[in-house]
Amino acid sequence: MKKHNFSAGPAVLPRVAIENTAQAILELNGIGLSLIEISHRSKDFEAVLAETISLMRELLDLPNDYHVLFLGGGASTQFATIPMNFLKTKSAYLDTGVWANKAMKEAKGFGETICVASSKDKNYTYIPKGYVIPSDADYFHITTNNTIYGTEIRYDMDSPVSLIADMSSDFLSRPTDISKYDMVYGGAQKNIGPAGATFVLIKESFLSKIATETRHIPTMFNYKTHIENDSMFNTPPVMPIFTIKETLKWLKSIGGLKKMEAMNIEKAGILYNAIDSSSIFVGTAEAESRSLMNICFVLKPEYTEKENDFLDLCKAKGMSGLKGHRSVGGFRASTYNALPMESVLALVEAMKEFEKSL
Amino acid sequence: MKKHNFSAGPAVLPRVAIENTAQAILELNGIGLSLIEISHRSKDFEAVLAETISLMRELLDLPNDYHVLFLGGGASTQFATIPMNFLKTKSAYLDTGVWANKAMKEAKGFGETICVASSKDKNYTYIPKGYVIPSDADYFHITTNNTIYGTEIRYDMDSPVSLIADMSSDFLSRPTDISKYDMVYGGAQKNIGPAGATFVLIKESFLSKIATETRHIPTMFNYKTHIENDSMFNTPPVMPIFTIKETLKWLKSIGGLKKMEAMNIEKAGILYNAIDSSSIFVGTAEAESRSLMNICFVLKPEYTEKENDFLDLCKAKGMSGLKGHRSVGGFRASTYNALPMESVLALVEAMKEFEKSL
Repeated sequence: MKKHNFSAGPAVLPRVAIENTAQAILELNGIGLSLIEISHRSKDFEAVLAETISLMRELLDLPNDYHVLFLGGGASTQFATIPMNFLKTKSAYLDTGVWANKAMKEAKGFGETICVASSKDKNYTYIPKGYVIPSDADYFHITTNNTIYGTEIRYDMDSPVSLIADMSSDFLSRPTDISKYDMVYGGAQKNIGPAGATFVLIKESFLSKIATETRHIPTMFNYKTHIENDSMFNTPPVMPIFTIKETLKWLKSIGGLKKMEAMNIEKAGILYNAIDSSSIFVGTAEAESRSLMNICFVLKPEYTEKENDFLDLCKAKGMSGLKGHRSVGGFRASTYNALPMESVLALVEAMKEFEKSL
Repeated sequence: MKKHNFSAGPAVLPRVAIENTAQAILELNGIGLSLIEISHRSKDFEAVLAETISLMRELLDLPNDYHVLFLGGGASTQFATIPMNFLKTKSAYLDTGVWANKAMKEAKGFGETICVASSKDKNYTYIPKGYVIPSDADYFHITTNNTIYGTEIRYDMDSPVSLIADMSSDFLSRPTDISKYDMVYGGAQKNIGPAGATFVLIKESFLSKIATETRHIPTMFNYKTHIENDSMFNTPPVMPIFTIKETLKWLKSIGGLKKMEAMNIEKAGILYNAIDSSSIFVGTAEAESRSLMNICFVLKPEYTEKENDFLDLCKAKGMSGLKGHRSVGGFRASTYNALPMESVLALVEAMKEFEKSL
């Protein structure tokens, strides 16, 4: 039976990326050795890393003064190293969910931290507007996609201070003007690869602001260390980087980010339409804040007790990962880049079938 | 042609672990989904992590009051988080090579750091003896195997203060009395798995010494965070952990650590004998400090110009990873757990053939 993988992350990846990873683990480039048993300083792996960075630059049309890093430790490590490196007098955060909040909490450990706005009052179902970014902040931090609640900041905003974005769950889902940001980062395991690698894009001029005079920054936590060593200061996460390369190759092969965005708009549009035209389902995020990556919906109050029945029906049709996060309830369909249209159509079909059965 | 992989790390892994990883990437447990596209909180991955920890406990006969963690960021991250967590007044380090030195350098950023002894005077070709560990140190840090120089501390020492060991390159190569240590850690990519995962064994009672009253410790860098969340505070390195599980299963299947140690002694013994009985090769490490994991040797001065000829001969016979580190020169044969005896015999054969040809 065809499986439909709506997992919020780690999540569906292009089949070709999965197959090529499995092949490289058996044998890389016909060298008689596995990807995972050769030196990270061998020419075969150096070529993998170079191609991954080159594809990233090409897909994003990345300005030359941005560095591309692949590190270990996850986005949660970045939550701490961002203020460690860049908080001198004051930081500013937009609180759009649990992960944005976790990032903000880490900043508080290093100095004054302003929450410019929060949507916690309505369980993070919208992206706040009309807030003021303090012009004396060292940086302003946003979380562009909020996996748990299905909200997304789908444009590249202007900021009077250095803009830093956690793009863990919508990176490379649309053309992005990276020049608006001094730093973009995220865990790979939503849209671009498997768990275990963290991407960091950082502007050269931002490095001069690293707070080495304010506090001691351990070598591994100073961004300059990794830039000066091309992500090879220590052994990088070899396997995840290979899969990212294969995922980026796939992204290029389907037509790049503009095409990817059009496909994502189409997929999400079909699902949101199905929710909005249903008499039993209702979306949880405010319409103008809706994410193209995570689509959250619940049964109307009179049908809530049927939640497990719908999940059972979906499971019987080969769908997985549809249970909503406990803080929202209901259902969450994650429609990342690699989720095929046929999975969206299968879900819409199941929703209609379920509605008729009631 | 059969390949012989003498890489110093990432390094040779059991073929069965590689094949099972490739299979799990194609499809895990017959669930119709890849290991790398399911949630780390799914029952299928939780079972992987639980089995990995259980195998580790069984192989080491680990006391119940030790925690087992798998983290991202590499041993280099631990170099910083160890003093961040445990250096209150003074730390003590044994300087046995570049990596030991890097660990010590990170401690200096957090407070007084004593180098109890160093073998730098002889390019780290021996393990110092007769040093005094300060009884007022918060901890004493050692690097049990020094990959670059081929030296190893092959016993579990007594220490008057908390003993912390970086066992990156000889972990699980012999039965180890973990109760002598308050913490053992290392990168997986030498002896137990691929790059991208860091193992940490830590004693429950040691956690009470975490220096939260001395300094701010970010959430991700506090060991308690990961213990309280069973290595699942954030998404763990899924693929590397799976391969570690398969490697540990292989270790158990061949007879466990006692058998592994006997095999390692036999392999290294054959190679050291070949070096010692040769008229052209000579070992670089002092005899009593010799490592069972990395065997470093050079050509005698009168043959030094033939170095590349020997490497070419080995390459023609399917051997790779034999070039010594630039700070030692010559040759380094890494004979980790998974290196088969036939690779050692092939190298010895090549050494004899080369000697005859001169």
